[in-house]
Amino acid sequence: MQKVVRFYPPSYDIRVEEVPIPSIQHPDDAIVKITLAGLCGSDLHVYRGHQHVNKIHTCGHEFVGEVTDLGSSFGDQITGRPVLYSKLKIGHRVVSPFSISCGECHPCRQGFTSRCTESLLIGSPALDGAQAQYIRVPKAGGTLVSLSDPSTWQSSIPEAARAKVLSTLNDSSLLLLADILPTGLFAAVQALNHPKLGPIVKQAPWPMFDGLPTLSDPPAAIEKTITVAIIGLGPVGICAAISLIDYCAACKLSYRILGVDLNEARRDKLERIYAAIGDDWKAQGQLKISSSEGAKENIQAWTAGIGCDAVLEVVGHSNALMLSYELVRPFGVITSVGVHSNNQLPFLGSDCYNKNISLDFGRCPARAFFPAALDLLVKRQDIFGSVGEETSLIDQIVGIDNAKESYRAFDKGEVGKVLFNPWK
Amino acid sequence: MQKVVRFYPPSYDIRVEEVPIPSIQHPDDAIVKITLAGLCGSDLHVYRGHQHVNKIHTCGHEFVGEVTDLGSSFGDQITGRPVLYSKLKIGHRVVSPFSISCGECHPCRQGFTSRCTESLLIGSPALDGAQAQYIRVPKAGGTLVSLSDPSTWQSSIPEAARAKVLSTLNDSSLLLLADILPTGLFAAVQALNHPKLGPIVKQAPWPMFDGLPTLSDPPAAIEKTITVAIIGLGPVGICAAISLIDYCAACKLSYRILGVDLNEARRDKLERIYAAIGDDWKAQGQLKISSSEGAKENIQAWTAGIGCDAVLEVVGHSNALMLSYELVRPFGVITSVGVHSNNQLPFLGSDCYNKNISLDFGRCPARAFFPAALDLLVKRQDIFGSVGEETSLIDQIVGIDNAKESYRAFDKGEVGKVLFNPWK
Repeated sequence: MQKVVRFYPPSYDIRVEEVPIPSIQHPDDAIVKITLAGLCGSDLHVYRGHQHVNKIHTCGHEFVGEVTDLGSSFGDQITGRPVLYSKLKIGHRVVSPFSISCGECHPCRQGFTSRCTESLLIGSPALDGAQAQYIRVPKAGGTLVSLSDPSTWQSSIPEAARAKVLSTLNDSSLLLLADILPTGLFAAVQALNHPKLGPIVKQAPWPMFDGLPTLSDPPAAIEKTITVAIIGLGPVGICAAISLIDYCAACKLSYRILGVDLNEARRDKLERIYAAIGDDWKAQGQLKISSSEGAKENIQAWTAGIGCDAVLEVVGHSNALMLSYELVRPFGVITSVGVHSNNQLPFLGSDCYNKNISLDFGRCPARAFFPAALDLLVKRQDIFGSVGEETSLIDQIVGIDNAKESYRAFDKGEVGKVLFNPWK
Repeated sequence: MQKVVRFYPPSYDIRVEEVPIPSIQHPDDAIVKITLAGLCGSDLHVYRGHQHVNKIHTCGHEFVGEVTDLGSSFGDQITGRPVLYSKLKIGHRVVSPFSISCGECHPCRQGFTSRCTESLLIGSPALDGAQAQYIRVPKAGGTLVSLSDPSTWQSSIPEAARAKVLSTLNDSSLLLLADILPTGLFAAVQALNHPKLGPIVKQAPWPMFDGLPTLSDPPAAIEKTITVAIIGLGPVGICAAISLIDYCAACKLSYRILGVDLNEARRDKLERIYAAIGDDWKAQGQLKISSSEGAKENIQAWTAGIGCDAVLEVVGHSNALMLSYELVRPFGVITSVGVHSNNQLPFLGSDCYNKNISLDFGRCPARAFFPAALDLLVKRQDIFGSVGEETSLIDQIVGIDNAKESYRAFDKGEVGKVLFNPWK
């Protein structure tokens, strides 16, 4: 038997219970003994009853652990399948993206792993979650990432150095790779790579792509500065800000970032983190913090009334989308990675037309973003490495028996990000 | 005095009247004597009263003509402004994008000319239009394109050959450059250049851009075929199809295009045009035609139930947007170039999240797309060059006195695209 955290419908009912340890059910399965599991903002959507989940299930979609059993699809001799079917071994330290992906379907081959044709959200009615001592992972060769075999992913870290680098990372920072960090990176990269930001990033006017001719008289230079608002400064929003700053440093882009949140503690955290990071890295830009009331004035002042180039919407709420619309410039980009409920979009068809806006919605393909997120995690251990300090993304690590109280306190905004040690 | 076509509020009231010939009002103005003016689908939004226009004004936003007067901002000695301020002369043959753009503001410098900070829609309450004998064009050095001086734009046609090429093009095909052809091209290019189509076009999985590392085991090749639905087969939709086919030929991409329209005559026209173009050019793909009822089954069959990579929505209606949503795959792109009214978007926040959709809305920056559109116009004179044939985009050229009847017949779907010769 094992201890797990279970959700009871319809809402606000979390119980720690004993259930059987899972076993292999399909040849592609792995069983993982969990070292650390996260409590995430999107767990609150279920907790509060907003998603009308009506099935008892084990919660949690973020975990780090160790492989204890593998199905018969795994083995040295396996070819023609995702590499982990031949390389993953019992005893490997693994991290998992927050949804299952086979690595073999048409969406997966394109890197759209969060919309795998066999996708399951971990810790949902469809698949028991990670706030537990053990978890069964379907399609494990497509889903898991082995930290014990660094030859299985690309990295800017030389392969010979990876094992040593990984050994210096603690489980709590590796756990950020499950959702928080790739989702923040996804939001930032999706906006920065959008063709509507192309003229600034690539310093050429539209339509500059793919050899299409342009007018021969771009009359003046395009200012090489992006202005981006981030709405929602929880851990994902902070990771988005860090990703933006890192990307701008790499591309020698100057930036103006406005972090917006209703919650003062969250605003203060981003401010402290920004103050703590080195001037060499952040020298190319400026970051301001605002409540939603002051946001529009800030962006207007920065952009001579035109609006910001992109908005990263990390809340998943109509009000946040509407503010995004108000802040973004014509031909701007709204990248929404928040989980939305069954609400109407707050702007009209004519609003969208009149501003030529672009919108990107949806769930981060965390598996595809894992290598890039790990690179960033290693590079910025000053930010991602600590627990419980004033600048930490992770507030506390508690025993699994504390789950009921942790959900309550997290829901009330009394604590930030909490991790569960299921063996404590 | 001159003859003009005027709209009288609230709806369905078109009158041909005599008004004064316009004169220079600002140093950046030009006066153009109109050779041909178009009647466009978006004129019907006003005609039908859907846009609640409450001011009498001269209609029309598509024209070809000849410069008859220039403001004092023009002259050989002008520097530091868009090139036409020094190169445009009285007597030049010009074509104009359908909205005014200064060429100097931050949006214009990026190529976002349809959202110039001084943008005016030609043929609206803000600026009298082109269904007239003469028109005043503000910001003419940023807006107009001179066909008499081919050194002023980029082209794949060698500069020495351009004058000869242009002399072979009739006014009716050049008029397509005002709106129809760049808007169709814009829809196609915007979708094909979207990062969510990147894995197919560039044959590399996400996030493949800008040197971000990916997982090292893309387990199988990505099929190099795009599946695109075009909803709305008026002239813009047909131009979008031609643009797609041309782009795919250039990139050696194979294509499956589904053209969707409620109107049988429109479906038949695209079918005839497709049948008429050479096999060498279209050999890489297939095009099917469907009413909206059969669209979903067609796309499902082509894509094994996954959905199409992109939808080009050329109608500007909630039903067309909803069908776009139903047809598109997870991580797919909806490019909407139709003019939308004040309706709610037909899908919910959760729909957008659950499918990871991307949306691009808005008005084509026709000025920025002019060079690419002209290249395509020259290349495909077999399609764009004719008037009144079974495969023509333009059905008829009539005298301006026929305007009232032409609006009526166009509104009823009794004729396709009509041009006015204001001197006939």
